[in-house]
Amino acid sequence: MGDDVEAFPIPHIDYESSEEIIESNSLYEEQKGSIEVAPPPPKRLIHRLLYNTKEMLCPDDPFRQFKNQTTRKKCYLGLKHFMPILDWAPHYTLSYFKSDLISGMTIASLAIPQGIAFARLARLPPIVGLYTSFLPPLLYGIFGSSRDIALGPGSILSILLGSLLREEVNPAESPETYLRLAFTATFFAGLFEALLGALRFGFIIDFLSRAAIIGFISGVAIVVSLQQLQGILGITNFTEKADIVSVMGSVWPHPNMWNWRTAVVAASFLVFLLAAKEISKRNKNLFWVTAVAPLLSVFLTTVFVEATHAYLHIGTVGTLTKGLNPISVTDIYLHGPYALKAMKIGLITAMINVMETVAVGRTFAAKKDNKIDVNKELIALGIVNLSSSCFSCYIATGALSRSAVNVNAGCKTALSNVVMATLIMIILLALTPLFHYTPDVILSTIVFVAVIGLIDLEGAYFTWTVDKLDFLVCLGAFIGVIFLSINTGLLIAVCISVGKILLQITRPHIALLGLIPNTNIYQDIEHYTIATQIPGILIIRVDSPICFTNGNYIKERILRWVDENVDNARHCKGLILQYVIMDLTSVMSVDTTGIYELTDALMILERRKFQLVLAGPGIDALEKLNKSNFVQMLGQKWFFSTISEAVDYCSSLIKAQKRSIVD
Amino acid sequence: MGDDVEAFPIPHIDYESSEEIIESNSLYEEQKGSIEVAPPPPKRLIHRLLYNTKEMLCPDDPFRQFKNQTTRKKCYLGLKHFMPILDWAPHYTLSYFKSDLISGMTIASLAIPQGIAFARLARLPPIVGLYTSFLPPLLYGIFGSSRDIALGPGSILSILLGSLLREEVNPAESPETYLRLAFTATFFAGLFEALLGALRFGFIIDFLSRAAIIGFISGVAIVVSLQQLQGILGITNFTEKADIVSVMGSVWPHPNMWNWRTAVVAASFLVFLLAAKEISKRNKNLFWVTAVAPLLSVFLTTVFVEATHAYLHIGTVGTLTKGLNPISVTDIYLHGPYALKAMKIGLITAMINVMETVAVGRTFAAKKDNKIDVNKELIALGIVNLSSSCFSCYIATGALSRSAVNVNAGCKTALSNVVMATLIMIILLALTPLFHYTPDVILSTIVFVAVIGLIDLEGAYFTWTVDKLDFLVCLGAFIGVIFLSINTGLLIAVCISVGKILLQITRPHIALLGLIPNTNIYQDIEHYTIATQIPGILIIRVDSPICFTNGNYIKERILRWVDENVDNARHCKGLILQYVIMDLTSVMSVDTTGIYELTDALMILERRKFQLVLAGPGIDALEKLNKSNFVQMLGQKWFFSTISEAVDYCSSLIKAQKRSIVD
Repeated sequence: MGDDVEAFPIPHIDYESSEEIIESNSLYEEQKGSIEVAPPPPKRLIHRLLYNTKEMLCPDDPFRQFKNQTTRKKCYLGLKHFMPILDWAPHYTLSYFKSDLISGMTIASLAIPQGIAFARLARLPPIVGLYTSFLPPLLYGIFGSSRDIALGPGSILSILLGSLLREEVNPAESPETYLRLAFTATFFAGLFEALLGALRFGFIIDFLSRAAIIGFISGVAIVVSLQQLQGILGITNFTEKADIVSVMGSVWPHPNMWNWRTAVVAASFLVFLLAAKEISKRNKNLFWVTAVAPLLSVFLTTVFVEATHAYLHIGTVGTLTKGLNPISVTDIYLHGPYALKAMKIGLITAMINVMETVAVGRTFAAKKDNKIDVNKELIALGIVNLSSSCFSCYIATGALSRSAVNVNAGCKTALSNVVMATLIMIILLALTPLFHYTPDVILSTIVFVAVIGLIDLEGAYFTWTVDKLDFLVCLGAFIGVIFLSINTGLLIAVCISVGKILLQITRPHIALLGLIPNTNIYQDIEHYTIATQIPGILIIRVDSPICFTNGNYIKERILRWVDENVDNARHCKGLILQYVIMDLTSVMSVDTTGIYELTDALMILERRKFQLVLAGPGIDALEKLNKSNFVQMLGQKWFFSTISEAVDYCSSLIKAQKRSIVD
Repeated sequence: MGDDVEAFPIPHIDYESSEEIIESNSLYEEQKGSIEVAPPPPKRLIHRLLYNTKEMLCPDDPFRQFKNQTTRKKCYLGLKHFMPILDWAPHYTLSYFKSDLISGMTIASLAIPQGIAFARLARLPPIVGLYTSFLPPLLYGIFGSSRDIALGPGSILSILLGSLLREEVNPAESPETYLRLAFTATFFAGLFEALLGALRFGFIIDFLSRAAIIGFISGVAIVVSLQQLQGILGITNFTEKADIVSVMGSVWPHPNMWNWRTAVVAASFLVFLLAAKEISKRNKNLFWVTAVAPLLSVFLTTVFVEATHAYLHIGTVGTLTKGLNPISVTDIYLHGPYALKAMKIGLITAMINVMETVAVGRTFAAKKDNKIDVNKELIALGIVNLSSSCFSCYIATGALSRSAVNVNAGCKTALSNVVMATLIMIILLALTPLFHYTPDVILSTIVFVAVIGLIDLEGAYFTWTVDKLDFLVCLGAFIGVIFLSINTGLLIAVCISVGKILLQITRPHIALLGLIPNTNIYQDIEHYTIATQIPGILIIRVDSPICFTNGNYIKERILRWVDENVDNARHCKGLILQYVIMDLTSVMSVDTTGIYELTDALMILERRKFQLVLAGPGIDALEKLNKSNFVQMLGQKWFFSTISEAVDYCSSLIKAQKRSIVD
């Protein structure tokens, strides 16, 4: 085989000029293919725009199913797209119904105490929590694409909505305005969700990374659980703020104000609820234990409070009006300053709402080989929140804990949501007086148990192991939430995430490549220690688009390697560098700044008598290099389709030169 | 050669298990190398951190020159790093001095009228423009690393500083506070520059792309040139705002207020100045024409105004105090609300200042094979602005027009700046009364000519040709500046630039690869039409880091290709898909979200009975995949170093399967 470098020479269209110096060898003769690296035919702007828009908004190609179908079928498919109930209803069986009935009943028993407790987290009347546990799941049964999600009030969303609302209105001073603002915010959240979904902008939820979500949710869980100390310790005069310092400031300095009776009740039911959770976790067949335990606790404590007249000493839920959701459409602010404020709150809660619901939906869908379409889900949540805000509901979400119970209870379709809604309806119509004497302490305990399960230590540890920078994102969100405020934490997480991407782009990986002996493969010499550099040739691979944030860096990095190579060659009296090969295979785009910098690099290298050689530029990059005249400046003969071609050509030239010197 | 696919089988460490099914061929026998794709040994966190910090802050490796030097030499090199005068002074020759003297005199003649005119752009007393043309170039002669830049007041910086200052203070109402705020802003700009340079944060200027700069500067030039209509048309009662609507609103509705005498003078000198510019452009030896013309115009109009007593009818410069820069260190606000405002202004102006100076420096340095070190330049500008703000100077910059004259006049070193400063010093000490009757109209005309040269139509057209999205950045900055305000334009440009990067990352290029016949090269089938897909195997190359913004998209895109491939195979009764090969060569990093999505993709593919195969993951990505247990989940045998290895292995398995079916 002779020289390693020429083990697999592959002919190139521009070889003609130098064909006489390429050694004839048997392998070369056998190669017939030739790879042309001509600039591609220019694509029309409108085509490119359409293509890019499609990839941006419809990466899942939702129109695929409509191909080669009759108009009627197309209409049906379109309707099915927006009402997934049509997808499962025709194939619905009795055995499905049995499963859905059981799971629906299970989540209903969980939803009743949670509904009341979570509404209180948002500083809303407890009955609103029950309203929100009735209408939204009913609608979700029709429009929801996930078969696992149990819709209703969620702890994270409730606390977030509450803290955002309290920045605008004091619920103690003007409870009616507060309530109206809550409905308005829910209305706008629904509107944003529906709009984003219809415009297929679902991808924006991807901008919250998992690390950020872990930090954010864990932080919120800690803040919420600490806030429950108010109910658990029976403290009056509690801070309205959500950060840890204010909360601990309300709890710590006044142990004389702690109510030891509520604390004892809370502690015993805490043990009971946690034990129930543990039992369900250990034995999947006992899934109903964790679901029934909160309702049982509520029942026991309520009976106890009523029997002992303890309601004279401790806080209770109070009167809950009988009857279904009253119409609240006239309560919604559609103009004025409150409308604007509600829009802002709606936007933030909508983002978190979608993020939480989609994350939960995807978690379970992956296990069942279903797929969650973010845009479909956005529309579903949008419809649900938009319409239920007109009927005294606040923002509904697919909470993780309830959905997990739903899945474990064996739900088959979204009908379990409908079953749950029906049960809540019965409660609303007839049984609300039962909760009159339900003590605050048990609700606080239920919230406490629900949220401490959200603290994701395992996830945080995994993030730490895998990616330290991601852990920083997680930590930033966490610290922001617990020490500053929930929105600040969110903002910090987004900023660090985006900053991380920008840094990655600003200092992209650039690898120095070497030849793996006895192959024609070039690999990163840092990774593959057996890869060896070829004397006189420097091979560099750029692993990122070349753009304004990194153009200058890439140029500097290359010139630094050139300097080092020249120094080494001088030191070891080796072959002086002649060719600098840049592998642009993975450089899919170059912007104008990138082209300026490449031109600059080319000029500097030329002045120092080094030849720049480009291997495998992508179609877009090549087109831009061509349009900007870079191809003509460098000369098309210095463009190769692969590194090995480029190296073969360069080493043949070096050899020819050596020979001519010897001669 | 037989089968194309197996033309160049390259052995792999995990081949043992399937060795019996690989056909023996002569080529294979000759291959001895084996490429191991083992996860790399874990790097210590501290090492990685140090390496990343170094690449981030010191990509140019400034410590290289210190290697293997004596301590004394090291000190000298360090001093030279901060005072580039030590670099050129020892080799200074008489012929250099001649060149520097001529170019210094040339730029001085340009600097005198420009100094007065630009100070007026910033609404500062004209004399401050002369002060700024004296001290800063003197200091830059010592600390400046560029040999081409002529430092002094600049049109862009002056208008930017003026518009930012006027947002805080009205110069007509409280001129003294305005002036003090200007010095304070310059002080903080210098401080920020010096700090950023010392901390080696120069890379942040890369966040302004060329397209953004073109749009921004062109917009500013148009706004400034229109503002000159005030002086040219002799309009009193002119708007303080900088947007085109306000300016045209001041000019257009009152033609009866236009002063036709000043308009005629302006028009004739406009022709004269533009002609001078054109002459210098056509004949490089007449470089001095463009430099002397403004001073000559000033001289002619001043004499004319004095002789005809026209100063009674039109605005003139007025009294300029004789003497060098007075000390202004006590005028600087170091605390209080003005200090904070000045800090904000200083930060913005510092960014534009460095951006402009470095861009100008690089433009000329590239032509002379010098290099501009951004961090060095930051420190130089920082020292200059910091110290000169204490002596009644406002922010000084390396303006393009003056630097171009400097280069054309043949400057050799920064001494030309010193020569210019000396000449300005003579003016300040003795000749300021000469400018008493200099009419406003000629200053406006000089500014007009200086700034219209900054409108970069060619650059904008180049951007349009090469990159439409970049053009959008350019247009955004332009429209923002001319219709809203200068800072808004800047903000828009930065936002679009960053947004563009995020979009690129969110929807990265993913290529479907095919085999180039008779080679072992796999290329994008969209680009290389001769590349053919291999039945039963899908090869996908991801050209971006896999992270939270694109993880889900990459997964969806791959699954869509899998669907399409399966459909096609069913349609054509071809070989059903079995292996999905992902080429991760250019995926240099994966974050935790990316790993979740990859795991998700793996699970979905496994459930559908497709085997995922990974080829050539980079060192960092591999380490993370290993840490997160992904390597163990997939099985190490499905990791290959190159696509061709992976394909060879998969097709050998497919062949063996076929044979066993036939048997």
